[in-house]
Amino acid sequence: MKNNPREKYDLLTGRLEEISRLGGVMSTLHWDQEVMMPPGAAAARANQMAAMAGVLHEKSTDPALGDLLNAVGLADEMQFNPYEWRNIHEGRRDYDLATRVPKSLVQEMAELGSRGHFIWAEARKSNRFEDFAPVMARFVELKTEWARAVYPDLAPYDANIDLFERGVTMAELSPLFENLKAELIPLVQAIRAKEPPHTGCLQGHFPVAKQEALGRRISQDMGFSFDMGRMDISVHPFCGGSHPTDVRITTRYRTDNFIESLYAVIHETGHGLYEQGRMPEGRDLPVSETLSMGIHESQSLFWERMIAQGRAFLSHYLPLFTETFPGNFAGVNADRLYAAVNACQPGLIRVEADEVHYPLHVILRYEIERGLFDGSIAVGDLPAVWNEKMRDYLGLVPPTDTLGVLQDVHWSGGSFGYFPSYTLGALYACQFYRALAMARPKLEHEIERGEFTGAREWLGENIHRRGRLLSAADLTRQVTGEPLNPAHFIAYLKEKYGRIYHLKH
Amino acid sequence: MKNNPREKYDLLTGRLEEISRLGGVMSTLHWDQEVMMPPGAAAARANQMAAMAGVLHEKSTDPALGDLLNAVGLADEMQFNPYEWRNIHEGRRDYDLATRVPKSLVQEMAELGSRGHFIWAEARKSNRFEDFAPVMARFVELKTEWARAVYPDLAPYDANIDLFERGVTMAELSPLFENLKAELIPLVQAIRAKEPPHTGCLQGHFPVAKQEALGRRISQDMGFSFDMGRMDISVHPFCGGSHPTDVRITTRYRTDNFIESLYAVIHETGHGLYEQGRMPEGRDLPVSETLSMGIHESQSLFWERMIAQGRAFLSHYLPLFTETFPGNFAGVNADRLYAAVNACQPGLIRVEADEVHYPLHVILRYEIERGLFDGSIAVGDLPAVWNEKMRDYLGLVPPTDTLGVLQDVHWSGGSFGYFPSYTLGALYACQFYRALAMARPKLEHEIERGEFTGAREWLGENIHRRGRLLSAADLTRQVTGEPLNPAHFIAYLKEKYGRIYHLKH
Repeated sequence: MKNNPREKYDLLTGRLEEISRLGGVMSTLHWDQEVMMPPGAAAARANQMAAMAGVLHEKSTDPALGDLLNAVGLADEMQFNPYEWRNIHEGRRDYDLATRVPKSLVQEMAELGSRGHFIWAEARKSNRFEDFAPVMARFVELKTEWARAVYPDLAPYDANIDLFERGVTMAELSPLFENLKAELIPLVQAIRAKEPPHTGCLQGHFPVAKQEALGRRISQDMGFSFDMGRMDISVHPFCGGSHPTDVRITTRYRTDNFIESLYAVIHETGHGLYEQGRMPEGRDLPVSETLSMGIHESQSLFWERMIAQGRAFLSHYLPLFTETFPGNFAGVNADRLYAAVNACQPGLIRVEADEVHYPLHVILRYEIERGLFDGSIAVGDLPAVWNEKMRDYLGLVPPTDTLGVLQDVHWSGGSFGYFPSYTLGALYACQFYRALAMARPKLEHEIERGEFTGAREWLGENIHRRGRLLSAADLTRQVTGEPLNPAHFIAYLKEKYGRIYHLKH
Repeated sequence: MKNNPREKYDLLTGRLEEISRLGGVMSTLHWDQEVMMPPGAAAARANQMAAMAGVLHEKSTDPALGDLLNAVGLADEMQFNPYEWRNIHEGRRDYDLATRVPKSLVQEMAELGSRGHFIWAEARKSNRFEDFAPVMARFVELKTEWARAVYPDLAPYDANIDLFERGVTMAELSPLFENLKAELIPLVQAIRAKEPPHTGCLQGHFPVAKQEALGRRISQDMGFSFDMGRMDISVHPFCGGSHPTDVRITTRYRTDNFIESLYAVIHETGHGLYEQGRMPEGRDLPVSETLSMGIHESQSLFWERMIAQGRAFLSHYLPLFTETFPGNFAGVNADRLYAAVNACQPGLIRVEADEVHYPLHVILRYEIERGLFDGSIAVGDLPAVWNEKMRDYLGLVPPTDTLGVLQDVHWSGGSFGYFPSYTLGALYACQFYRALAMARPKLEHEIERGEFTGAREWLGENIHRRGRLLSAADLTRQVTGEPLNPAHFIAYLKEKYGRIYHLKH
């Protein structure tokens, strides 16, 4: 076979499409497991997923795929357009990630991952961090080894971050997080000194069927297509599915609180709109995929916080809330609802945190992970370090490790470097919203009338349909005219909560 | 590697388990497609399933698998126990079926299968058999070619039957079906001459939620485990799922008829109990799998017809029916309900036929398929042949081909030899029930009290847990003491309908 780059490219994309489709199958199995699978099937499903993981590994590390990547990689730059080069480079990256890790390391990480999850769950139940500590220590070693194998030029923790947030390093994150900390700690202290808003209208009894209809209605208003998606129930809300035409969001219901479930629907709808909005061509190719964890999170937080926690949105939906739960909203006006929805207070648990406190939870974890990888923090000291940082940043000390260092699932599977994406997402969301508001001066009026098409189309054009054609950094510059700038997020929080809590400027 | 049969066997079963687990994944995709998938995902799902089919084909035809089968096949008979030999022989059969067909033929069958389905659906809609005829003619050619490739020693139609009903041939079926025809045609004529029973109690308005609760309750009473299964809605009821611990039945609901949906639940529960009841060991190996289409159908019909259409069952559930649908059953006693549920009448459509008429629909199709393969019937004559047989066997002539020769999906995908399994299933079910009734003289009393454990356990011990250790013929002899004997089925129908319709003996 002669080295015709075009033919090789077609063979390459055929293989990449196959891997993507098999990945879609795996996603369907994940969704089914969380949403539909009968409990007795757990062991059989684990075997099925292991068989699929084996197939995906074979396909992703096939030397013939490597040969094709080598061949097209040698082509003249003009031989492929940027769309095609993106597929080639992303294919290369995935291939390197899959093939550079020694098999023994892959196996030990997988084995420790499933054992570690079990040990963590038990340790959390019995409040015994010391039982989980050896798993944690070994994972730091393994992930350091992994980093040296896949990205020998990066510091090990930077390599771990890169997996979720391409190109982001400690050199960027550390000053950014210092800046946030310096601004947010005084802000949360000022908020705590004030009287909290009344939240009585959000308490009561909310039948599940009514909550479900409300969530479905608002998701649809936002533009989620139920022709290319579903909404179901799971223990933890998530956005899954196998393809832009098959996007599956979930929520959970409590009958004493409808806001939690509704905002989970809105959050997951934000993720879902990103998936459904991907570019129409190459949907089984890397170029069309969503860009990074942080950009994905920016889409969910854009809708959840920037839009749905805003006064305009709440003013539009107050009549629907009143109609749905007539007992609760008599005499409540939009300002009062807005204050109630945005009431904030410090808490021990990251996933329950509001937008002001959330970054402090993330920064604490980032500093701990960085310290674990550079050796300045020992695993054995984690509970003490955790509790000290909680006191310094949030003014609270967890009474148990279950409510402290053992609360997150991430470390039990060796996921390090993931947490920063949550806060990067919040920063992107705020900066994107600001750019949108400048591009559409009547944005707030549109939202007040329940018109979301303009916002959604702007996100589609500027972010969703661009796939991976640009890096997150370049995308941010193109869309907002400047690099990621935490000043916007800080100004947004100060302004918003300054008004809600009557803080002095 | 030296030829150690035990080691080779372990490698072989590892590969067979992998194939079985990937097959389970494929089943989950099928179920999801019919029950959960958003409509817009159809094209993406087709790509995903094609990718999975490709993987399954690679795994099933891997020469290394063939080498292992060759190696263990040479072992001394005493080297493996019958359970192990069954795995080896079933593995061999599947490997031969997968590898003996030339790739060009596989591709043309797959291509014609998807195109043919579309052409058939259009032809059925427009009542134009002539549009479908070329597909049908080509499929007979392809399936003849296929048969010569996989089973050169069998007549082509026998090879097609063998795929669904191992070891069954025209030499067995033709006299059996002649016998049935000779007995059933006069029986249906005698029934038609009589006044039909009153069925008014089965007509009315039946809310879906109540039907669903009723179906779930009865399925559970029968012993279906919802810990290892689910019940959902689909356009056509079926029993799917990926494993004995993950069995998923479906039904559909009409608000003007609850019997149809309920008996679909009972039928699919019968299939589901077979799957859930498989032997506890080797569940990802061929030895534990269900035996044949006919034996599978015997399990659904055992529960649907032999038990649930019986007087004892209806007598037990009449109070629950009355409680669920209070308007309908005032003044209805068990005899009247029994007569109503068993009312029978000739119809044009096979899937709507009752147990007396159903075999005649099957025999008609069997005779046509046999004639197509031996050249005695031309595809162009099918509508005429169909209508003539309908008149002779059922006394009805379809007004259109849509209600006649175009009604079934099977031929659109080239499935020939499948129809006999439906009637073999009915015969097995009747003969098994008779054996059970002899083993448990108080069976009817148990059913009358809603006690199904004895019947289910007997099926589990005699059929479900035996997997593929015996052939269907040997199983029948061991369980009932004689070969498959249509006399029992004929006697059962004559006795039952003789009483319901007051026929002279």
